[in-house]
Amino acid sequence: MLVNGLPSDCISADDRGLSYGDGVFRTLRLRKGQPLQWSLHFAKLSHDCLAMGLDCPAAELLLHELRQLSATLPAAVAKIIITRGRGERGYAMPKSGRHTRVVAIQPEPEFTASKSQDGIQTAVCRIKLGHQPALAGIKHLNRLENVIAASECRDAGLAEGLLEDGQGRVIGGTRSNLFMVQNGGLFTPDLAYCGVDGVQRQRVMAYAGERGLKCSVTNLCVADLQAADEIFLVNSVFGLWPVREFPGYLRTEFPLSNRIRNYLEEDETRS
Amino acid sequence: MLVNGLPSDCISADDRGLSYGDGVFRTLRLRKGQPLQWSLHFAKLSHDCLAMGLDCPAAELLLHELRQLSATLPAAVAKIIITRGRGERGYAMPKSGRHTRVVAIQPEPEFTASKSQDGIQTAVCRIKLGHQPALAGIKHLNRLENVIAASECRDAGLAEGLLEDGQGRVIGGTRSNLFMVQNGGLFTPDLAYCGVDGVQRQRVMAYAGERGLKCSVTNLCVADLQAADEIFLVNSVFGLWPVREFPGYLRTEFPLSNRIRNYLEEDETRS
Repeated sequence: MLVNGLPSDCISADDRGLSYGDGVFRTLRLRKGQPLQWSLHFAKLSHDCLAMGLDCPAAELLLHELRQLSATLPAAVAKIIITRGRGERGYAMPKSGRHTRVVAIQPEPEFTASKSQDGIQTAVCRIKLGHQPALAGIKHLNRLENVIAASECRDAGLAEGLLEDGQGRVIGGTRSNLFMVQNGGLFTPDLAYCGVDGVQRQRVMAYAGERGLKCSVTNLCVADLQAADEIFLVNSVFGLWPVREFPGYLRTEFPLSNRIRNYLEEDETRS
Repeated sequence: MLVNGLPSDCISADDRGLSYGDGVFRTLRLRKGQPLQWSLHFAKLSHDCLAMGLDCPAAELLLHELRQLSATLPAAVAKIIITRGRGERGYAMPKSGRHTRVVAIQPEPEFTASKSQDGIQTAVCRIKLGHQPALAGIKHLNRLENVIAASECRDAGLAEGLLEDGQGRVIGGTRSNLFMVQNGGLFTPDLAYCGVDGVQRQRVMAYAGERGLKCSVTNLCVADLQAADEIFLVNSVFGLWPVREFPGYLRTEFPLSNRIRNYLEEDETRS
């Protein structure tokens, strides 16, 4: 792990990342020190930093640090955290001050192939996402809703759960973006009020665009999902999981999900 | 600063407090090592820990650490942070694992007496609070809304700002609870959907209860405030600030606010 470029496993206890969740992060996979879809991940990190008024580190610096930590590992998962750094007292963002940059590497988790191939069982979480348009889409460090939701899923023995907002709109998974297939077209939830706009969501939308497949960003409720031909979830660590079942829904064939999963996996070696 | 009881100024970079804001905190004043309103602060910390599924440290342990750090200081402000500790990967709460406890002391900030006596100028912040009943009232570490709001105020030269939810209900200040006086009665916003239920709010409600003064927990909009006889804001560091003006509102006399401020200040030496 590197903290501001130096080997360290700690940050200052008065860091605003701890005090207020005042920062952003990325989780991404690496192959022999090379991050997969680096250009998309860096673009997203830059976007999120800009949205939060944070200075994004240079891509070359981050790439150098990722390689330094993982060059000898055939496969790894990296986490990059950028916080507003140590605080003056009080909530207001300091006018100056050095940000904190954490780059950490962990071994790649093992997922059984069955989740990708046979699909997963899921359910709608009890906790509902609040609306905050000023922060929607951003992968910031205020993630208690995801913590509560993911704990619900784990306790229920589910690999992933679905999150609704307070108005009954499905927004995504606890750590993934959601797509629905119907009549050959793709649909994905609007993230204007809550949720995280992840890199794999962008890749699926790019896949659709390249093939003239319509992909609508829209409001989806559970009844819409129950009527879907296919549903799948994507994130940068597990890739693509089709949904096999949730209450009121059972599918065993995932033809478009599988094509898109193959695309995401084949395209992985491109940065 | 003490981290898990040991002198230290750093926490592990994989602490869930940093990763997800998975923890709670308290800010309180001390006189010669003795926290003011300790029983209320500890009760609130215990309540928030319970609500988040965290084990609250023993009161005696926290008191010992507070005294250790501040016994020689005539006046200080303490911050106590309890996080879920170092993480396994992923959002779900670990089933076990040691929490992280940070106890830090800073000098007491100087507030000019004019804010308490002459009242402050305020305004409604542009950012609106999202609704999250699962977390409402708790002083947890997901405070980006407060960060954005407080930065707005600072940039506007205001000592404090008012926060509305998305439905136009005023919830409180960026770091304080709000009360309105009308026809001799007190009114304070309902915090069932957002906001923090602070210790000084509880003290004002106790003051009202002891004196047979009606205090209603209700929905308040800006128009309600504009029609108020008095408005005041409370928190554990600055105490009580009457509101002198905000757009559509100007008052120069604060009789009940002053009585309550005197009560809060006189009662300070009791723990």
